[in-house]
Amino acid sequence: MIQIAVLGYGTVGSGVVEVIETNKTDINKKAAEDLAVKYILDLRDFPGDPYESKVVHDYNMILNDPEVKIICETMGGTKPAYDFTKQALLLGKSVCTSNKELVAAHGPELIKIAKENHCNYLFEASVGGGIPIIRPLNYSLTAEHIDSITGILNGTTNYILTKMDREGADFEDVLKEAQDKGYAERNPEADVEGYDACRKIAILSSLMTGKNVSYEDIYTEGITKISSADFKYAKQMNKSIKLLALSRDTENGFYAMVAPFLISRDHPLFSVSDVFNAVYVHGNMLGDSMYYGRGAGKLPTASAVVSDVVDCARHQGKTIMCFWDEEKVEVADVTGARRKFFVRIPAEKREAAMAAFGALAEVNVGLAKEFAFMTQEMTERDFDEKIEKIGGCINRIRIMA
Amino acid sequence: MIQIAVLGYGTVGSGVVEVIETNKTDINKKAAEDLAVKYILDLRDFPGDPYESKVVHDYNMILNDPEVKIICETMGGTKPAYDFTKQALLLGKSVCTSNKELVAAHGPELIKIAKENHCNYLFEASVGGGIPIIRPLNYSLTAEHIDSITGILNGTTNYILTKMDREGADFEDVLKEAQDKGYAERNPEADVEGYDACRKIAILSSLMTGKNVSYEDIYTEGITKISSADFKYAKQMNKSIKLLALSRDTENGFYAMVAPFLISRDHPLFSVSDVFNAVYVHGNMLGDSMYYGRGAGKLPTASAVVSDVVDCARHQGKTIMCFWDEEKVEVADVTGARRKFFVRIPAEKREAAMAAFGALAEVNVGLAKEFAFMTQEMTERDFDEKIEKIGGCINRIRIMA
Repeated sequence: MIQIAVLGYGTVGSGVVEVIETNKTDINKKAAEDLAVKYILDLRDFPGDPYESKVVHDYNMILNDPEVKIICETMGGTKPAYDFTKQALLLGKSVCTSNKELVAAHGPELIKIAKENHCNYLFEASVGGGIPIIRPLNYSLTAEHIDSITGILNGTTNYILTKMDREGADFEDVLKEAQDKGYAERNPEADVEGYDACRKIAILSSLMTGKNVSYEDIYTEGITKISSADFKYAKQMNKSIKLLALSRDTENGFYAMVAPFLISRDHPLFSVSDVFNAVYVHGNMLGDSMYYGRGAGKLPTASAVVSDVVDCARHQGKTIMCFWDEEKVEVADVTGARRKFFVRIPAEKREAAMAAFGALAEVNVGLAKEFAFMTQEMTERDFDEKIEKIGGCINRIRIMA
Repeated sequence: MIQIAVLGYGTVGSGVVEVIETNKTDINKKAAEDLAVKYILDLRDFPGDPYESKVVHDYNMILNDPEVKIICETMGGTKPAYDFTKQALLLGKSVCTSNKELVAAHGPELIKIAKENHCNYLFEASVGGGIPIIRPLNYSLTAEHIDSITGILNGTTNYILTKMDREGADFEDVLKEAQDKGYAERNPEADVEGYDACRKIAILSSLMTGKNVSYEDIYTEGITKISSADFKYAKQMNKSIKLLALSRDTENGFYAMVAPFLISRDHPLFSVSDVFNAVYVHGNMLGDSMYYGRGAGKLPTASAVVSDVVDCARHQGKTIMCFWDEEKVEVADVTGARRKFFVRIPAEKREAAMAAFGALAEVNVGLAKEFAFMTQEMTERDFDEKIEKIGGCINRIRIMA
C-alpha cells in the first residue's frame, strides 16, 4: 500500500481523488501496489465530503508522516507550492504536479533536487492536460533530434477562436459567453494574453533542448486584437486563426514564441477545435507527429497527474530519466524569423504599401475602407520596418507556413 | 558501451543502423551508455557498404557473443524470427522488433519469456511505424480505463483511398500507380485485404485489455470493393472513406474489426491522409486522445525500434511493465454491433428497400440506374437479414458514428 497526499482540493485535486477511486482496479494493477489517499491539504474544511476525514490544514503532518511516499501538488501558483514541493523532495517524497507556473519557473532546480534525493518530480499534467506529451518527448522520441514543436496549448483561447470562426462573433462577446459558461476565468488575462501558453511552450522547449528555456525570454502575443473582420479574411483565404505556441531549433539559433497565426485547412492543427489541445512535433527521422486531446478539465488533467503517481509507485527509490538542465538556453530574437504576413491597412495607404512591400497578394472581402494583403516571406524585422514606413496598420497576423 | 545486433539488413534494419549513427549524440545521452552495432545478420553480403564488416550469416555468432545485449529483429515474418527471438530472450538478450506478424502471433509468450529472463521484448515499431502508441498505452494512459481504439493503421490503403477521394480515380488504377511508386507491394494482399491492419489492431486490443486478442478472431474486410462511385456518394454526404481498425470494450462484450467506413468531416481521423496513420483512443477519464504520424517508412519505423533499444539500455536486467497475458479474450461476434449503413442497390429494388428498411435517407449523385440510401442505426445482423431479403446490394459501407 502506497500512501498519497493531495495538496489543494480544488478542481484538479478533487479530480485526482476521483480518478484514483474510480479506476482503482486498473491503476493498482499498473502501479504494482495499491494506492491510497491518506491526506488532502486545504485551507478549507469539506463537511459532508466523503473524504472529509482526510482533510488537514497543516502541511507538516504530511511532511512528517514517513508513510506518505507520493504527493500530488494541484494547488497552482508558485507560493507556497515551490516551498512545499522542495520540502517534500528533500525528504525523498516524489511530487506529481499539474502546476505549469511552478514547473516553468523552477523545473530544473526541482528535478535536480528530486534526483539528489532518489525520488521524482513529474509534471505530465502541466502541459496539454490529459494528452500524453511529456512522456512521449522524454521516453518515446529518444531516437530523434527534435527541431520543432508547434502547439495549441490553451483551451480557453482555442474555444474563443473556434466560436469566432464558426459564428462570426467578436472577441469580447465570445469571451463574455465563455466566462458565463466557466470556460474562461473572470480575470482572463493569463489565457487571452498568451501567458499560459507561454509557460507551457517554455516547458516543452526545455525538454526539446535538454536545457532551460526561460518563459520570460519567449515573445508572447495574445488574441485580444483578433476581430470578426480578421476571420472574414481568414475564410476568404481558406484558413483559420489559432493561437500557436512555437519552438524552433534553427541554424540561426533557438527561438520560441506565442502568437495568433493564420493556418491552412490542410495543416493537422487546423481541425483542432474548441477546448482541445494538440502538440505537433518534428523530429529528423520520424518527421511530423501529433498528440491531440483534452488540454484541460478536471478529469483529463487529474488522469495525467495519476499516471505520474503510477510512475512514481513503480520507480520507488529511483529517478526516472528527464533531461532538463539548469543551463540557460540563449533564446534568439524572433525578429530574425522568416515568414509571410497578412496585413490590413486603411484603403488610402494602398499605394504606399505596394511601394514598400513590392509583390503582394490582395485579399478582398468587400470592406471598402481597407486594403488587405499577404506579403512575400520576409523576416519579422523587415516586416516591422516596412509597416513603420507606411505608418502602421489596422492589424497584421502571421501566416504559418 | 552496449553492443547491438541487427537481424535483417533490409529497409528497416538499415534504417536502424542509420538512425543510431545519425543521432548518436542524442541517443547515447538518453541511453546513458554508448550504443554500437556489432553484427548485422543477413543472408546476403553487402560489398562496399560502410557496415560490410559487421555482416554475418550465422546467428549463433550473435547468440554466443556475451557482449551483445540487445537485438533488433527487423526481418519480418514468423520464420525464423520466432525461433531467433526466443533463443535470444532465453539467453537474457533483449529484443526490439518492428515485426507485427510475430508480435500478433506470439506476443504474450515472448513477453513472458523476456520477463522470466530479466530482459525485454519491445515492439513500439510494430504498430503505427514511428508514432509513439505502444508506450502511451503502456506507460502514459495508466490512470485510464480504455474502452475504445479506432485506428488508421495501414499507410498503403490510406494512400490509395486518399488518391481515390481526391482524384475520383478507381481502385485498380490507384493501386497500380502506388505499386509503381513503391508505396504498395507487388503482392498487395496483406495491405488491401486489411490483414496488416488486423495484426496491428490485435496488438493494440491486447494492450487495451491486458489479455490476448487473437488476430484470427478479428472480422476483417479490405478496400478492394470500394469504387469511384462510392466516393461520389461520400462527397455528397460530406464524408470520406477510410479503412478503420476498431476495438471496442462494450457492455455486450469485446469486439474488434477492420473494414472501410464512411467518416464525417468533423471526425479527427477524417484529415489523416496519404501514408499517415493515426490512433484514436477513448479513456473513461481523459475522453478522446489521438496519436498521429508516419505509420511506415524506413526512418520513422527505425526510429521507433531505436527508441526501444534506448529503453532496453536503460533497463538492463529489469523488465519494463507490459500487461499482455496469454489468457485469451473472448471476441464477440460483430453481428451484434449497432451502426448506420450506406447502401447502393439497383433502382428497381427501391420499393423493396423502403419496405425492408422503413425510414431511410436517400443519397442522390445522379446515377440513374441505382438507388442509394443511409439506414437508421441497427445491428449488423439486422442489416444483413434485410439486405438478404431484398436480394443483395451493389455495395454497402458502414458509417462511423
